[in-house]
Amino acid sequence: MQQSIHSPQPQSVSASAFDSAAQLSNLQQTYTMIPRVRPQTPLLDSIAAPADLNTFTTAQLIVLADELRLFLLYSAGQSGGHFGANLGVVELTIVLHYLLEAPHDQIVWDVGHQAYAHKVLTGRREQLGTIRSKDGLTAFPERAESVYDTFGVGHSSTSISAGLGMSLALRHQGRAQTVACVIGDGAMTGGMAFEAMNDAVQQDADLLVILNDNDMSISCSIGGFSRHLAMLWESGYQVDISDTGEPILCHRPDMQAFDRRKRHKEMRDVPQLEDNLFKAIGFTYFGPFDGHNIPELLRVLSLAKRLTGPVLVHIYTTKGKGFAPAELDPVGYHAISKLPVDIKCDTQSTNKETSQSSSKSALKYSQVFGQFLCDKAAHDEKLLAITPAMEEGSGMTDFARHFPERFFDVAIAEQHAVTLAAGMATQGVKPIVAIYSTFLQRGYDQLIHDVALQNLDVMFAIDRAGLVGEDGATHAGVFDFAFLRCVPNMLIAAPKDENECYHLLNTCYEYQGCTAVRYPRGVGTGAVIEQPAHTYKIGEAAVESILGSDAAPKKLALLAFGTMVATAQQAAESLTHDDAVGCQVHVVNMRWVKPLDTALLETLLAQGITHIATLEEHMIMGGAGSAVNEYLLNESTAFKRNRPAVCNIGIPDRFIAHGSQAEQMADCGLDIDGVVMQLQQLLS
Amino acid sequence: MQQSIHSPQPQSVSASAFDSAAQLSNLQQTYTMIPRVRPQTPLLDSIAAPADLNTFTTAQLIVLADELRLFLLYSAGQSGGHFGANLGVVELTIVLHYLLEAPHDQIVWDVGHQAYAHKVLTGRREQLGTIRSKDGLTAFPERAESVYDTFGVGHSSTSISAGLGMSLALRHQGRAQTVACVIGDGAMTGGMAFEAMNDAVQQDADLLVILNDNDMSISCSIGGFSRHLAMLWESGYQVDISDTGEPILCHRPDMQAFDRRKRHKEMRDVPQLEDNLFKAIGFTYFGPFDGHNIPELLRVLSLAKRLTGPVLVHIYTTKGKGFAPAELDPVGYHAISKLPVDIKCDTQSTNKETSQSSSKSALKYSQVFGQFLCDKAAHDEKLLAITPAMEEGSGMTDFARHFPERFFDVAIAEQHAVTLAAGMATQGVKPIVAIYSTFLQRGYDQLIHDVALQNLDVMFAIDRAGLVGEDGATHAGVFDFAFLRCVPNMLIAAPKDENECYHLLNTCYEYQGCTAVRYPRGVGTGAVIEQPAHTYKIGEAAVESILGSDAAPKKLALLAFGTMVATAQQAAESLTHDDAVGCQVHVVNMRWVKPLDTALLETLLAQGITHIATLEEHMIMGGAGSAVNEYLLNESTAFKRNRPAVCNIGIPDRFIAHGSQAEQMADCGLDIDGVVMQLQQLLS
Repeated sequence: MQQSIHSPQPQSVSASAFDSAAQLSNLQQTYTMIPRVRPQTPLLDSIAAPADLNTFTTAQLIVLADELRLFLLYSAGQSGGHFGANLGVVELTIVLHYLLEAPHDQIVWDVGHQAYAHKVLTGRREQLGTIRSKDGLTAFPERAESVYDTFGVGHSSTSISAGLGMSLALRHQGRAQTVACVIGDGAMTGGMAFEAMNDAVQQDADLLVILNDNDMSISCSIGGFSRHLAMLWESGYQVDISDTGEPILCHRPDMQAFDRRKRHKEMRDVPQLEDNLFKAIGFTYFGPFDGHNIPELLRVLSLAKRLTGPVLVHIYTTKGKGFAPAELDPVGYHAISKLPVDIKCDTQSTNKETSQSSSKSALKYSQVFGQFLCDKAAHDEKLLAITPAMEEGSGMTDFARHFPERFFDVAIAEQHAVTLAAGMATQGVKPIVAIYSTFLQRGYDQLIHDVALQNLDVMFAIDRAGLVGEDGATHAGVFDFAFLRCVPNMLIAAPKDENECYHLLNTCYEYQGCTAVRYPRGVGTGAVIEQPAHTYKIGEAAVESILGSDAAPKKLALLAFGTMVATAQQAAESLTHDDAVGCQVHVVNMRWVKPLDTALLETLLAQGITHIATLEEHMIMGGAGSAVNEYLLNESTAFKRNRPAVCNIGIPDRFIAHGSQAEQMADCGLDIDGVVMQLQQLLS
Repeated sequence: MQQSIHSPQPQSVSASAFDSAAQLSNLQQTYTMIPRVRPQTPLLDSIAAPADLNTFTTAQLIVLADELRLFLLYSAGQSGGHFGANLGVVELTIVLHYLLEAPHDQIVWDVGHQAYAHKVLTGRREQLGTIRSKDGLTAFPERAESVYDTFGVGHSSTSISAGLGMSLALRHQGRAQTVACVIGDGAMTGGMAFEAMNDAVQQDADLLVILNDNDMSISCSIGGFSRHLAMLWESGYQVDISDTGEPILCHRPDMQAFDRRKRHKEMRDVPQLEDNLFKAIGFTYFGPFDGHNIPELLRVLSLAKRLTGPVLVHIYTTKGKGFAPAELDPVGYHAISKLPVDIKCDTQSTNKETSQSSSKSALKYSQVFGQFLCDKAAHDEKLLAITPAMEEGSGMTDFARHFPERFFDVAIAEQHAVTLAAGMATQGVKPIVAIYSTFLQRGYDQLIHDVALQNLDVMFAIDRAGLVGEDGATHAGVFDFAFLRCVPNMLIAAPKDENECYHLLNTCYEYQGCTAVRYPRGVGTGAVIEQPAHTYKIGEAAVESILGSDAAPKKLALLAFGTMVATAQQAAESLTHDDAVGCQVHVVNMRWVKPLDTALLETLLAQGITHIATLEEHMIMGGAGSAVNEYLLNESTAFKRNRPAVCNIGIPDRFIAHGSQAEQMADCGLDIDGVVMQLQQLLS
């Protein structure tokens, strides 16, 4: 290894600062309760900007970590939000802001839900309680929110690419600024992280990558990469960094307190330290180190940041660190909801997000999907199901338990997930890809080439379609109709409620070819799922209701897609309740975006429809309404004859900021009032 | 390493078959001319299906390789097509079909342009001359074409995912069939290959991956991964496979005849055999082996195919092997055009595809882009340009030569390319991502999240938009308007000719925000590029011409996007030439898909337009025509008043098979006759 070392910079930490490391570690506290009263955090309160850390001693940094952790616990109880990942990077965040000079130096957080501590230290402490609420802080770093947020990161695996871009642009301009990317072991399974590492070596870029290995992404990390990290751990060795920046192979100091809980299948091989993936790709590798040990982090990172070329420092942390219930159940505590006002908070009263809505009677759409999977798999050996690291979120936990050999969690790897399904389909099974709408954006080319072009028998169960609330614009699944509709061979169904979702899943499953069923986040109308499963006719819509007098001078066809059917129904009731409008409304549940029920459109036109409105929770541009427009203008002679007025109601051409789903819908004019207003405009 | 071995199967090659390996190697010929007369290939002619290979001796297989290579040379001269990669895998293809029982066993070719030899051996020898022509063989494996084509592969890096899907589906059904994936070193840089390897290990799937390392994808392989492969080579060691399937580390036999021509930047480290990426991720690794040595391939692969779990065999081959000019210039000979009829063929009369059109006066659009890059970069230090492994194809060779420090070839890594640009843009430079339309499908999520959502200052130069001819449906860039138009903040420009392309590139470059300029494959109208560069008004269309009498009873607005303007002009001339139609045509060069020039639409409507037709080389569904529909129906009161008839002309809802670009356009009704016919229909 030949690593040149920059000349030491004055701000670097002196060796003496680390002397008392062992004694200081026991300042770390572990909590068992989420405080309901704001804790005393005098050191934390003294920090208005990261530069305020400069005068801190190591001991003070450790106390600060404790205060920050307690503050995060308190704040999460007040506002809800991402939890475990933030507790895990408290020490790292402090050390990075101590050693680097943000915003001059660039810190890129991969998957931003680990950035709460960063937000607190960068002047947003008092706003943290507003996180994820309308007009409050965003759930992820956002450039518009703070100069310290260098890059918006809602989806994972992007930080090395973004950081490399920064590093190369800085080099091009002769600017000496450090770029540090923090990426989790889960995010590292995304192929683009590998692409970026490949390129960083090619460019010989100055880039510090910190691999925050907590042995899981949202659920648990899986695959060869995770197994590799486990090997590096279990070898008992460590590549330490010398005072001159040289790698030194040594036996790792005992850290028995750290419980790995590696959950891998039996390994084929004994651990082999010599096969190091990061060194193989060309990075200078150091690690693994204890990511909760502030003196060690200070020592290692202050040396590593002065090295040139691509450097990776591998630290291991515990998700949920410092909060006992989360350490025991890191998956359940990925995110939490607000503390209920009237419940005493202790470790027994769980407020994990996953159990949040169990009190409600309505099923989440993800649960409907999960039920369909289990029901169908029980009678159909051909059914295989794939998820890119979203087992819980997609409602697949029961299926995975009952049919483990037919459940494939491929890690954060959307491109692979889609082509894997295509490969399976060539061998006479029926794969279902369960995927969030926004994550399907990562498998778009594969959907076109590997599934649709070959017309393979693959079903996509598209969850989190439409506006998703607190996670904001990065997680809004509002482009899928547009990017799927133009792809030949694709069928696209959009259920109006839970019951229709169940049977549309069944319909698309039974169809031979490529299909997508698209449903939203959260609960539906509470519709009960009828048994047994049946199939709908492909491309057949249904008139939901006809409201108002047949003698009314105006006849409106309200063509609603997906869960907007309920809104359409209520808007129609409101409209027809008002006799002054003089309108009859035919509420149509379109059910399919592709193929479109053009026969029904003709029937409606034949019935003397004077106005047509389309209604969808999707961008207006290129959406389901566009499909209706295309048919009417190009194909329908009745439309040419009668010339009813048309309007497309949907999401306007802008990104919709975070807030509750209801607030977002109102923001877009997609709540009942907004829809009624737009319909009145059409009718006037 | 603990590898369990399947019990030997009767069809495996006996050890004695390899005895005369050394003597046999000199049966390999190297040619310097492409034969114009069909060569004598008696052994090859005896093969109707791969099973016919079963009785061949090793010596016969070597002679067969020579015959097959000569046949490929002859055939390529007759039909043109992909060249170098096919010559490089002649021996591998023969050995795979000898050892495996296709189609029972599954062979997956990554990036199908290495599959010509496979097509010849699987019953399509006599049709090879029709490759890439209308109704002829496809340029890539295609499931509909042959049962031996297990998976369609137009884009790279998919084979391990697809093969893993096959393997898992076969395991689920208890079917013992071998799955072998052949992937190049270039394709391996695509992140999804890494995702798939990660998952293959997780699943402990029986999967044989053959890494065909020819030290380049289409241009040269780059990055840490390629450097890693070079290290494995330069170490002088080899992981051989024992008769029982165990890995044996040994000094590699001397193979000086093989010239690596590795073109890497100076390596930071000395070769370190111990860091093996494939072993690190969990594959059982063997290699590197000489991929042109049939006896060695027989020995290694017959053993490797009996192993369980994920196995990778690393072979090195020479692109263009056996044809001297291609061995010397593998980039130039990636593909070739047909031999000209009247030119004597020898090594001097180059028919490399890259120089094919130099005789024509018109510039290719990629050359226009290249010229813009060089012109702009000369005066603007901020300009940086990125390509995902398409330097030549995107016209960036001159730029790369003159501005090497501002040129970034990131390897086959579309996701990374987009986010890299976003990262660069945060630091005050102006990155341009040069990318083919279909490849941008791989960076779609990154375009939404990392560029558009943050409204970063990135320009996309989208080449190969529209129908691309011989490469067929996999390379047709016909979805980009639809998937880009719905994304807020994006500007989309579509130039009508080379000159407008140059100045639209300049316009979008000067704009602060995210933009795309979309242009087709090949040459334009021959329009001369005016200097100096100027900018167009964002979103402003131009009336190209008004043909026909102002007194005509019908007035048609023909709204053409991009290069369809020329077609529109000719169609309009044809229409107005025929007085019987009684129509005046306003030909409009829309120039921008987003924002749309709605003011001009209003002006046209105010002038009493009776018919509107949109015209684009893109899917009708969700395309530019849809944007016009949305405006007219939702916003325009003049439209509501006048109610002109509307039709959207574009590509219908099906994948368009390969053929010449002209044949494809005619197939879609986008040639002049087809457009005239559709316009007459609208007007009647």
